[in-house]
Amino acid sequence: MAKAKNILFIMFDQLRWDYLSCYGHPHLKTPHIDAIAAKGVRFDRAYIQSPLCGPSRMSTYTGRYVHSHGASWNKVPLKVGEITMGDHLRDAGMGCWLVGKTHMEADAEGMRRLGLEPDSVIGARVAECGFDIWERDDGMRPEGPDGFYDPGGALKYNDYLRNKGYEGENPWHDYANSGIDDAGNVLSGWFLNNSDQAANIREEDSETPYLTRRGIEFIEAQGDKPWCCHLSYIKPHWPYIVPEPYASMYSPQDFLSPVRSEAERETDHPVYKGFQNAPVGRAFSRDDVRDKVLRAYMGLIKQCDDQMGVLFDWLKKTGRMDDTMIVITSDHGDFLGDHWLGEKTFFHDASVKVPLIVYDPSPEADATRGTVCDALIESIDLLPTFVEVAGQDAGKLDHILEGRSLLPHLYGTAVPERGFVIAEYDFSASPLAGKLDLHPDQARMFMVADKAWKLIHFESGHRPILFDLANDPGEITDLGGSTEHADVRAKLYDLLFEWARRPAARTTMSNDSFIAKRAGSPRHGVMIGIPEQSDAAPEAVAKYVGRKAVDKRS
Amino acid sequence: MAKAKNILFIMFDQLRWDYLSCYGHPHLKTPHIDAIAAKGVRFDRAYIQSPLCGPSRMSTYTGRYVHSHGASWNKVPLKVGEITMGDHLRDAGMGCWLVGKTHMEADAEGMRRLGLEPDSVIGARVAECGFDIWERDDGMRPEGPDGFYDPGGALKYNDYLRNKGYEGENPWHDYANSGIDDAGNVLSGWFLNNSDQAANIREEDSETPYLTRRGIEFIEAQGDKPWCCHLSYIKPHWPYIVPEPYASMYSPQDFLSPVRSEAERETDHPVYKGFQNAPVGRAFSRDDVRDKVLRAYMGLIKQCDDQMGVLFDWLKKTGRMDDTMIVITSDHGDFLGDHWLGEKTFFHDASVKVPLIVYDPSPEADATRGTVCDALIESIDLLPTFVEVAGQDAGKLDHILEGRSLLPHLYGTAVPERGFVIAEYDFSASPLAGKLDLHPDQARMFMVADKAWKLIHFESGHRPILFDLANDPGEITDLGGSTEHADVRAKLYDLLFEWARRPAARTTMSNDSFIAKRAGSPRHGVMIGIPEQSDAAPEAVAKYVGRKAVDKRS
Repeated sequence: MAKAKNILFIMFDQLRWDYLSCYGHPHLKTPHIDAIAAKGVRFDRAYIQSPLCGPSRMSTYTGRYVHSHGASWNKVPLKVGEITMGDHLRDAGMGCWLVGKTHMEADAEGMRRLGLEPDSVIGARVAECGFDIWERDDGMRPEGPDGFYDPGGALKYNDYLRNKGYEGENPWHDYANSGIDDAGNVLSGWFLNNSDQAANIREEDSETPYLTRRGIEFIEAQGDKPWCCHLSYIKPHWPYIVPEPYASMYSPQDFLSPVRSEAERETDHPVYKGFQNAPVGRAFSRDDVRDKVLRAYMGLIKQCDDQMGVLFDWLKKTGRMDDTMIVITSDHGDFLGDHWLGEKTFFHDASVKVPLIVYDPSPEADATRGTVCDALIESIDLLPTFVEVAGQDAGKLDHILEGRSLLPHLYGTAVPERGFVIAEYDFSASPLAGKLDLHPDQARMFMVADKAWKLIHFESGHRPILFDLANDPGEITDLGGSTEHADVRAKLYDLLFEWARRPAARTTMSNDSFIAKRAGSPRHGVMIGIPEQSDAAPEAVAKYVGRKAVDKRS
Repeated sequence: MAKAKNILFIMFDQLRWDYLSCYGHPHLKTPHIDAIAAKGVRFDRAYIQSPLCGPSRMSTYTGRYVHSHGASWNKVPLKVGEITMGDHLRDAGMGCWLVGKTHMEADAEGMRRLGLEPDSVIGARVAECGFDIWERDDGMRPEGPDGFYDPGGALKYNDYLRNKGYEGENPWHDYANSGIDDAGNVLSGWFLNNSDQAANIREEDSETPYLTRRGIEFIEAQGDKPWCCHLSYIKPHWPYIVPEPYASMYSPQDFLSPVRSEAERETDHPVYKGFQNAPVGRAFSRDDVRDKVLRAYMGLIKQCDDQMGVLFDWLKKTGRMDDTMIVITSDHGDFLGDHWLGEKTFFHDASVKVPLIVYDPSPEADATRGTVCDALIESIDLLPTFVEVAGQDAGKLDHILEGRSLLPHLYGTAVPERGFVIAEYDFSASPLAGKLDLHPDQARMFMVADKAWKLIHFESGHRPILFDLANDPGEITDLGGSTEHADVRAKLYDLLFEWARRPAARTTMSNDSFIAKRAGSPRHGVMIGIPEQSDAAPEAVAKYVGRKAVDKRS
């Protein structure tokens, strides 16, 4: 096998790190993903930058923290000018294509300001977060009294379904994401009490197999030129519903118990309490809801793994397994009732820690095959890794990219590990921010964690939350108000402060360029603080010596 | 008089706040500037965002901190996508033009990435920091063995001089910025021992009168459409040399004594000591150098004030004084030997505090004419002020603009003052950073100050510096290591931390938009955490009710 030439960057949506058998799930067997872990490195402390699709992905696609790129919530546009995975990889001679979801919202106002037409090559890339588009599918076509959430959502997939005989204006909803009763009524997958229904669709036509085929079509169409394919699945993200045979595959004896305590429910923390009290927190705190959702959630993951089997078999058959790096990860997790929460918008590991498996065919990676790496990893580390696979030195881009290449971890070469990870969440747009009467600047939270501790800071002025990860890995006991842990909190606050001061916007000049300027004598004639000509090097002032002029003073 | 319709935004370069008679200079009389202060408001605590031309100006022109726009040093390009004064004012229907200096460096790499041609209308604005160009003149045409510092610098002015009979390839240097001896030798103004020479140029042809005339020509050419004219003088910035009669106007009895102490010279602070030991610090610590430079520096300021007289007379004559806001400020000060320093790259008031005088013809401003405002002001406050003069609500742009409109101060309306000011300096490219062996991320300094205290933080890991502004306005005694001031330092560090966490990159969605979303029921059909259809509002789920499908499960 030779050096990796291509990158297959697979992302699942809302896939918890501990719902794969290689990460220890006792009942959900994911042999195809596990096989990649056995041939690559499984990262055991991989964190995303924000527990929500949009901001998490914008960090992954730019290699920069949310605090740096600013797209802090779903549908907050990524500002024009941000440099993306596509920009970096194309500069390195590698194509960068999307098959699936990004949750990108274009900065239409910024594009207008710069005169970028969305239908130009460059404009389309700016609008699509730097990717060239094989298929953009954010996997949602919800509709309400005010119309569609995403007017362009799932259009190609809906066409596909109609061509396959699924009728109506929105087969995405009526078939792929709903059940059906004996009277022919659509049982919408939007409602959690339908999550134990089988989706009314042939399994092969559901979203995960569809996207797998689209990914294979993309790879088939590539010639010899190196490519990065972001194969970005929508599942196991809600609507929680899956077709047979997956719909009947799991039952309560397969479920993990929720990780939660009565003490948590009685928290005095207004923000944490607020998230518990939100509809999704209340819903997932109900065992009946959780039981129905878990059937679908686990079935969706099992389907994803089976599709990985299809995909990897095809890669082996075509030789692509020998020249392609494979990355498997997720954009965030899912609380599933842990800590009396649903969805993902808080900072427990159920949400901010993700699976991350990297297989590199290169001989340099032989030393680490099948190993587990427990270094602190952030999702912004992927882009510098990809830049290096594309043949560039990511260190030369460290004024732009805030992550670190994973290659040393894959090659087993010594590397100083980062000391802490950061995640951010902006709940400015949530009803909770209204209830707490917070300005958008205050409705933000930061997480800073090392291997031993996790601190959550609230801009709202409420006290922090602290977890002792070493002794309380379930993150059940909040030590945010504990007087004996004041020093721990202070140390984590120092790390957050150091991070917040980083020169994240200084992206137009490399660190090497700054350093190169230090040695510079004044070779362009700017003489600062030189009393006399003889105080400067003769060469530096040569242009100013021996000049003649005419007296014009009068 | 009616509401201000136009803005004449006058900036001097390297003009110390205390070198105007309205700010208390006992010997340097500046009656024309003082007259504007008498008709407007003189701000007594106006701070710039960085003590260096480029970063200070980029903050003024974007309304954003250096930590936000990233152009942290001269010639660090302002990244494409940053929204400028020109963008905001043109959106508000006001033209925004440059006559003079910006120190803007275009982000050529970013423009390439976005396909922006420098000769297109939009490309030219992006390359020129958002301004339309009447005349760009950064006032420098130095040349050394490696060529010109700025190949495009002072070209028009050099043409002007040649047309006036000043010969040679660089009359900017040989005449406007040099003296001459009896043998016809050019005495270069680059060398400080020539600063007491008269520049070899007719006064009317020197840079300050030239730019005044260019500004008047610009205003004359405007029709009825509102304009903002950034009349941006190069002087009293070095080369320190001025033509007669100004060259002979001031002598040592007119000079302020240097503000410095022997204890300062023995500082144990490696960064402060390093700046003292730089060539410019050593040069300005010499009384002979200082005496020569001050003749020129004060003469240059006097010439600037006389030109203000010419300009304001013309504005009165043409009626523009009645519909034009006039702003007079500087991009930073000049140590002139204070604290054993030269130039400006540190954080004493001699450098970071600037004159700021605002005259507003509007009747609303009658209440404050001739008053002094001691609120803490930052140079980023100018752009929101201008946006409001152009008729927009700057509050709607507070997700982009980090400053605050000065109009409430001009109108005498109650306003909560900001609690602290921030300045930053990046010395990554300096020889000192090399001597101290600092990574570019470490070669940075922050200043945080309120009315009582000023703290300087060093990313290099060295201890902070602290000044007691109330009891030590000369900033002579460094309390950075004083144990009894630990609480004061902690309080200022808290402010810096709060500031560093601000969501500066979240520029694509307004705070109002975030707040408006809080009230939103799920009107686009996204049903998160809804167990049953009956748990949601009937209207919200109406699209999902009563749908029929065909059974496709088998």
